[in-house]
Amino acid sequence: MTVSLSPVPDHVPLPAGFRAAGLHCGLKKAQQPDLGLLLADQPVHGAAIYTQNRLLGAHIHVCREHLAKSGGMVRAVLVNARNANCATGQQGIEDARNCCRELATRIGCPVEQVLMASTGPIGAPLPVARIVTHLDALLARASGDGAMDFARAIMTTDTYPKAVHGVTQGTATTGFAKGSGMIHPDMATMLGFLLTDGSSPTATATAAMLRRAADRSFHRVTVDGDTSPNDTLLLLASNRTRLASEGLEAAVTSLGQQLARTIAADGEGATRLITIEVRGAADEAEATMVGRVIATSPLVKTAVAGRDPNWGRILAAAGRAGVKFAADRAKVWVGAANVYSDGVPHPENEPQAHRHLVDDTLVVLGVDLGRGTASADVWTCDLTKDYVQINADYRS
Amino acid sequence: MTVSLSPVPDHVPLPAGFRAAGLHCGLKKAQQPDLGLLLADQPVHGAAIYTQNRLLGAHIHVCREHLAKSGGMVRAVLVNARNANCATGQQGIEDARNCCRELATRIGCPVEQVLMASTGPIGAPLPVARIVTHLDALLARASGDGAMDFARAIMTTDTYPKAVHGVTQGTATTGFAKGSGMIHPDMATMLGFLLTDGSSPTATATAAMLRRAADRSFHRVTVDGDTSPNDTLLLLASNRTRLASEGLEAAVTSLGQQLARTIAADGEGATRLITIEVRGAADEAEATMVGRVIATSPLVKTAVAGRDPNWGRILAAAGRAGVKFAADRAKVWVGAANVYSDGVPHPENEPQAHRHLVDDTLVVLGVDLGRGTASADVWTCDLTKDYVQINADYRS
Repeated sequence: MTVSLSPVPDHVPLPAGFRAAGLHCGLKKAQQPDLGLLLADQPVHGAAIYTQNRLLGAHIHVCREHLAKSGGMVRAVLVNARNANCATGQQGIEDARNCCRELATRIGCPVEQVLMASTGPIGAPLPVARIVTHLDALLARASGDGAMDFARAIMTTDTYPKAVHGVTQGTATTGFAKGSGMIHPDMATMLGFLLTDGSSPTATATAAMLRRAADRSFHRVTVDGDTSPNDTLLLLASNRTRLASEGLEAAVTSLGQQLARTIAADGEGATRLITIEVRGAADEAEATMVGRVIATSPLVKTAVAGRDPNWGRILAAAGRAGVKFAADRAKVWVGAANVYSDGVPHPENEPQAHRHLVDDTLVVLGVDLGRGTASADVWTCDLTKDYVQINADYRS
Repeated sequence: MTVSLSPVPDHVPLPAGFRAAGLHCGLKKAQQPDLGLLLADQPVHGAAIYTQNRLLGAHIHVCREHLAKSGGMVRAVLVNARNANCATGQQGIEDARNCCRELATRIGCPVEQVLMASTGPIGAPLPVARIVTHLDALLARASGDGAMDFARAIMTTDTYPKAVHGVTQGTATTGFAKGSGMIHPDMATMLGFLLTDGSSPTATATAAMLRRAADRSFHRVTVDGDTSPNDTLLLLASNRTRLASEGLEAAVTSLGQQLARTIAADGEGATRLITIEVRGAADEAEATMVGRVIATSPLVKTAVAGRDPNWGRILAAAGRAGVKFAADRAKVWVGAANVYSDGVPHPENEPQAHRHLVDDTLVVLGVDLGRGTASADVWTCDLTKDYVQINADYRS
């Protein structure tokens, strides 16, 4: 029971200079892919942002170390599902390093040009032997057609693979993500991979571009306000085409936003993708803040689950965001229906708002703060009994 | 399906100088009490703290105005359920003022010595005539035996009335609260009323005492992280007995903590009252902050609903609280079972932790941050499918 934005594609192309693969190595019980690979033909510029959580997955220590040593040059990224390699102590870090080393030997590149990312339950040792045994097969399968195999290999509670593709002025960008719970902005969020054949001249420029793109995409999606210790977002640029600077950043941001919406749409137990439109803010930061508080409110999210155009909860959530707006100058809308303005509700418009929640799986909730002209959109999903079921049962 | 801390008492005494009443005036559909009164024989010292939400219930404007005019002297408090009188514009404020004026006329006191509090759904006009029609009957019923009638009259989604009583060195204190959803600390929280016959010499001292008591009681309970625009906590001291300053503050704080636990226990859909024990913090503020983030985490709360001793989610929630502790020096316990320490989990103790969650309705989740000696307890409840059901259906 999740929201389909569009049919899952059979095929997603990769940008020039990249190959991908995915296979089953035995971490997931069923015969589903659980080990993925992104491979660059030559070392490419890479940048990453990570969770702000104090508890860190082992792979984050290794990614930081390797990117620092390599000066931001990346040749391969190995990803496993169904094991977070987190809270596994020093051994977990050694395990991730060993996986990178084994892969680097087979590729014939310095170990620091190989990164790793892990996702899944916290606390179990990483089955290194099982992973290493499958590296040869993984490398053999890596191809320009491997995008969907990779997208499937990184899924955990996701109900569909998340891969998007775009072409801007001849430059191709492909994005992957996994995540449908433990999702909250400003923590780099879930696992995300953005590959482009556009040009990012330096490691510093790549990192700065990634940070700004994430602020307008992945940092604006929330499912449950919880953050994972493993959240990692990675951008790789192969410099094969000319698009650069603002043009490339716009392409990368747009793809990031598509992935962010996909994550909210596939939120655990979701039946509605909710776009929170915040308008009339003094600046974009305060618009984003208000949007995130509304998007995190269990009362707003359960109201949407119940198809209740409960503008009071939307306004009350906005009211605790720390932004000093005047409630009697604010406006609230649900779909196209104005349900609150000038300090009073408009019950005559609630039937229209109710129909929007019943009929449309893509729901819009809006607030105008009446303070200025800045705006932001934030994405989330409704909170249903199925979210509780999924998360009460996860480890059993 | 809520947690019973103790049987609902048949009778709760009131401190010297106070009377109370409750009756059905027609706001609730069933013949349940929905209008309550607290009455002091003479004007008493009163202080209030309110929600920090930007959206404010009309009664909060009137309470602020009246307490300022009266210099903190209070004769009566009128409370209605099933209508928040919020987002009702200037008319809502006039309506609350009129209710106070009608009651003051009947008592024969200045209007500013009468306060009002409203709770219930947001956005509908207050049925003033229905309330005023019942004021004579309400006053006639006010007595030293009316505490439970009052406690019942202020209930909304509460499943049982919340009244507690204590005697310290001859000084009696009685507390009332309502609330089981839209509950979150630092917003004065829900409706709460603390009455004591102890001595608080000035309005300023009363206000300061209330603020400190709330910081250690009502501000440490959370059900869903949402806050109501109507949250109000009121302390009235009739100065009939000698207990004062620290002694009185301890009595008031203790009663506030009992009420706070009762609110979490009656959290919407709750099956477990959860006490989050934070230990080893550098100071009490950071201990409280970590406790509140854990208590607000949907993943921690659904894990308890599923009886899953998921220490990884507890540690991950602590990890995003903004406190820079070292995860490999932290400890996590569930009941008496040590499930994580020294950077690694202890799966051998998980069966014991699981039994605690299955067998005990009063659940303890603990974290030691390994930074110092400060501590704090925070109270919450599990997040169940019934929470979603209750809040998806609230207005329909």
